[in-house]
Amino acid sequence: MDSKSYLVQMNGNGVHGKIPVNAKSLNGTGVNGKGVHGHAIHHVSVNGTLYPAKVKSRRQRWEVKPSEMANNTLNPIRAIVDGMKLTPNPDKPMIALSIGDPTVFGNLPTDGSVLQAMKDAIDSQKYNGYAPSVGYLKSRQAVANFCSCPEAPLEAEDVILTSGCSQAIDLAISVLCNPGDNILVPCPGFSLYKTLAVSMGIKVKLYNLLPEKSWEVDLQHMESLIDERTSCIIVTNPSNPCGSVFTKEHLQKILKVASRHCVPILADEIYSDMVFPGCSCPSMASLSSDVPILSCGGLAKRWLVPGWRMGWILIHDRNNVFGSEIRQGLVKLSQRILGACSIVQGALESILNNTPQSFYNKTISFLKSNSEICFNELSTIPGLNPIMPSGAMYLMVGIDLEHFPDFKNDVDFTERLVTEQSVFCLPASAFEYPNFFRIVVTVPEEMMLEACSRIREFCQRHYRPCSRDSNDLDQ
Amino acid sequence: MDSKSYLVQMNGNGVHGKIPVNAKSLNGTGVNGKGVHGHAIHHVSVNGTLYPAKVKSRRQRWEVKPSEMANNTLNPIRAIVDGMKLTPNPDKPMIALSIGDPTVFGNLPTDGSVLQAMKDAIDSQKYNGYAPSVGYLKSRQAVANFCSCPEAPLEAEDVILTSGCSQAIDLAISVLCNPGDNILVPCPGFSLYKTLAVSMGIKVKLYNLLPEKSWEVDLQHMESLIDERTSCIIVTNPSNPCGSVFTKEHLQKILKVASRHCVPILADEIYSDMVFPGCSCPSMASLSSDVPILSCGGLAKRWLVPGWRMGWILIHDRNNVFGSEIRQGLVKLSQRILGACSIVQGALESILNNTPQSFYNKTISFLKSNSEICFNELSTIPGLNPIMPSGAMYLMVGIDLEHFPDFKNDVDFTERLVTEQSVFCLPASAFEYPNFFRIVVTVPEEMMLEACSRIREFCQRHYRPCSRDSNDLDQ
Ligand SMILES: Cc1ncc(COP(=O)(O)O)c(C=O)c1O
Ligand SMILES: Cc1ncc(COP(=O)(O)O)c(C=O)c1O
Repeated sequence: MDSKSYLVQMNGNGVHGKIPVNAKSLNGTGVNGKGVHGHAIHHVSVNGTLYPAKVKSRRQRWEVKPSEMANNTLNPIRAIVDGMKLTPNPDKPMIALSIGDPTVFGNLPTDGSVLQAMKDAIDSQKYNGYAPSVGYLKSRQAVANFCSCPEAPLEAEDVILTSGCSQAIDLAISVLCNPGDNILVPCPGFSLYKTLAVSMGIKVKLYNLLPEKSWEVDLQHMESLIDERTSCIIVTNPSNPCGSVFTKEHLQKILKVASRHCVPILADEIYSDMVFPGCSCPSMASLSSDVPILSCGGLAKRWLVPGWRMGWILIHDRNNVFGSEIRQGLVKLSQRILGACSIVQGALESILNNTPQSFYNKTISFLKSNSEICFNELSTIPGLNPIMPSGAMYLMVGIDLEHFPDFKNDVDFTERLVTEQSVFCLPASAFEYPNFFRIVVTVPEEMMLEACSRIREFCQRHYRPCSRDSNDLDQ
Repeated sequence: MDSKSYLVQMNGNGVHGKIPVNAKSLNGTGVNGKGVHGHAIHHVSVNGTLYPAKVKSRRQRWEVKPSEMANNTLNPIRAIVDGMKLTPNPDKPMIALSIGDPTVFGNLPTDGSVLQAMKDAIDSQKYNGYAPSVGYLKSRQAVANFCSCPEAPLEAEDVILTSGCSQAIDLAISVLCNPGDNILVPCPGFSLYKTLAVSMGIKVKLYNLLPEKSWEVDLQHMESLIDERTSCIIVTNPSNPCGSVFTKEHLQKILKVASRHCVPILADEIYSDMVFPGCSCPSMASLSSDVPILSCGGLAKRWLVPGWRMGWILIHDRNNVFGSEIRQGLVKLSQRILGACSIVQGALESILNNTPQSFYNKTISFLKSNSEICFNELSTIPGLNPIMPSGAMYLMVGIDLEHFPDFKNDVDFTERLVTEQSVFCLPASAFEYPNFFRIVVTVPEEMMLEACSRIREFCQRHYRPCSRDSNDLDQ
């Protein structure tokens, strides 16, 4: 250990400077080992005040490491995709069925009225300043009006505007959960829940969705996971990655579980109203009068503008369980970094009120038609089990891996699908659900058809009848 | 304790439902005390799988409390302002010199080219989808070009775009600090640093700024605070709330302290280049080749669009101290909620390159002229000690409280200034600096003049010569 001596100096203009005599420390050299600190206790008089200039145990070399929180912020999609060898077949143009962004192919532009609302907001010059941290009252009121229904009425004060649905989820988890708590999360499910929770020291318990029942929740399994540290149940409806939409009856059963155990619900309803014709999709809040619900939503999907980062939390609390405390907690958390861009907030009322119904309908029919094309094609491919969605923008496909001995798992399967056919689908391991892959159904129809035929070629090439049969055949 | 029995039921469409026989628990009544939990262990067979349906220790009544983090997210400005009785004098229109938003009075609109850049970005329809979590490469490149200088060159990969400078500060603190660490924060200083740090379990040590030295840092005091858990030093330059701008020499001294102790710097440079003519304001990074620096900035102040939430982190790390680990940590953290609105990102290159110099100059001359008016007026008021700023949009005023026996402190003083004169200034207790108040100099000139004359009237009315003198007078 080398203790330092200091000269307390007075420079020309009366500013004190403390300069180490041992100049070695200036450039961080001369360190005799990791974690070795020097000690120096001094008192310096500045303007008549005596400061203990002791340097308790100073660092003598640079050693800056990312925080635990940064290290624990894990993105399973990146973790898996970054580990894959994604070299497309040079003879075939790449088709990405992996990107959960409906805008990338240009076939699903937002409505002209939405763009006009933004330009009007800019021209008004009324929305350049800071909005309140929870959003402009007028914009919150517009969301309240838009999302309100007689069974679950909303006022402006029940709405908090956020930077995308992601921040809505972040604030909702942050206000409800402490480190050491656990939350219940669907499996397969959107990976952000786990990413956020784990980084905050909150445990994640996965409850099963049942593919054979159109991805309904395994209610017994869900209930078995609840304990006294369960601070919320996350329900994603309609679902990413499944494209499933729960029936009213099923939602009521989920609510009963929450009610029995007095656990609030975080309803991720970012795909709300994105359901195929004939299918209804009530909000969770409209079906319960006792379970307190934070419903997270936003413009991203239905209005096809995910980059704009406009989200919201709807506070449904008819029995006053959250009370003013949770509301105030959300307000406080919203003050950390403030929320959505003021221009988008300024345009929000017009976007919600003036987007023509035909725009929504067009999107839905496209998604439905593309889902059907994809489902019908893949249904006839031996070894694949697609599950027809009822909403959102996704379709899950089961892989009968016993018929594909060339591949260890879904990651292997989808990696080779890129190498051989230049088609990329996300392996559902990214959603904690191995042996499936997810297809995004927003790509243009021709692309979807071409992708399906390449998937067919790929499967035909690698399909083997199951081992017993193949033994029979061998003889 | 009442244990529950369950019926395992099979309903019409084959969905299992587990319904408690004791219906009382459904609505959360029948609870015999706070914190009492029931216990029930069952096994249910679902699709051949046996699940332990044990409910380890279930809640029997609703009890949802905000998290520690929400409770610990404290906003000193709100805490103080909400506690004040701010009832203006009905005979005088209110003048708020408290709002750190240059847009509220309409006298400081952003430049037309900035609005046009936004509208072009909207019309292009290229910016509706998700941007990468760290921002579009093109936009990061534009910031790199704009902020680069020969002494501290920047590449696109050194830039992370964020939702306002607030999120930049949030990410920077999050990546550098663990709970239990401490950070050094200027006093008086912008309150967000403490709000964020405390909510994350990070301690805050305040280092003094010296009003008598134009708010330079008390370097000895700063250095005395550093210990082995000090994970960064925050330097705000130009300063909110002081309006001060450090000289190059002073910045170099701060850098030496950081260098000696191997502590990285978080430079909050959101007001960079907002300095009065004749005053230079080099970035911290341009003055050091060894101290790793995260510089936080954004469009909010200089371009007069704080609501747009466009911020950035510049990673300066010429000695590779942060290395790839801190960079990757920032990337991971950016994936939590994603950053700035894609439209503003799309407009960024044009905003940075095409805003005419005359626009910046106009803003600066206005701020300087208003600061001078305010400083000159308040300088001649007995009992007040304004400190002339050199940049940013603020001016601090010391109160000689011994001359104002009617008031306990700065909060009391500013509260009564509202009641009597309908002028609101933020008491500097909100910046951990009692006996001062802060004036925002962005209000229109007439308003500033009127406010100053009312402050004069207020002070004249309450001023008392110091007690010894007044005793003399009494005799
Ligand atoms: C289920 C679900 N929730 C939330 C989000 C995030 O929405 P936003 O882009 O508004 O943050 C997504 C995005 O894909 C999603 O699929
Ligand atoms: C010193 C300082 N840093 C950061 C910010 C926050 O900037 P933004 O509005 O871009 O989040 C402010 C806002 O007043 C500020 O004064």
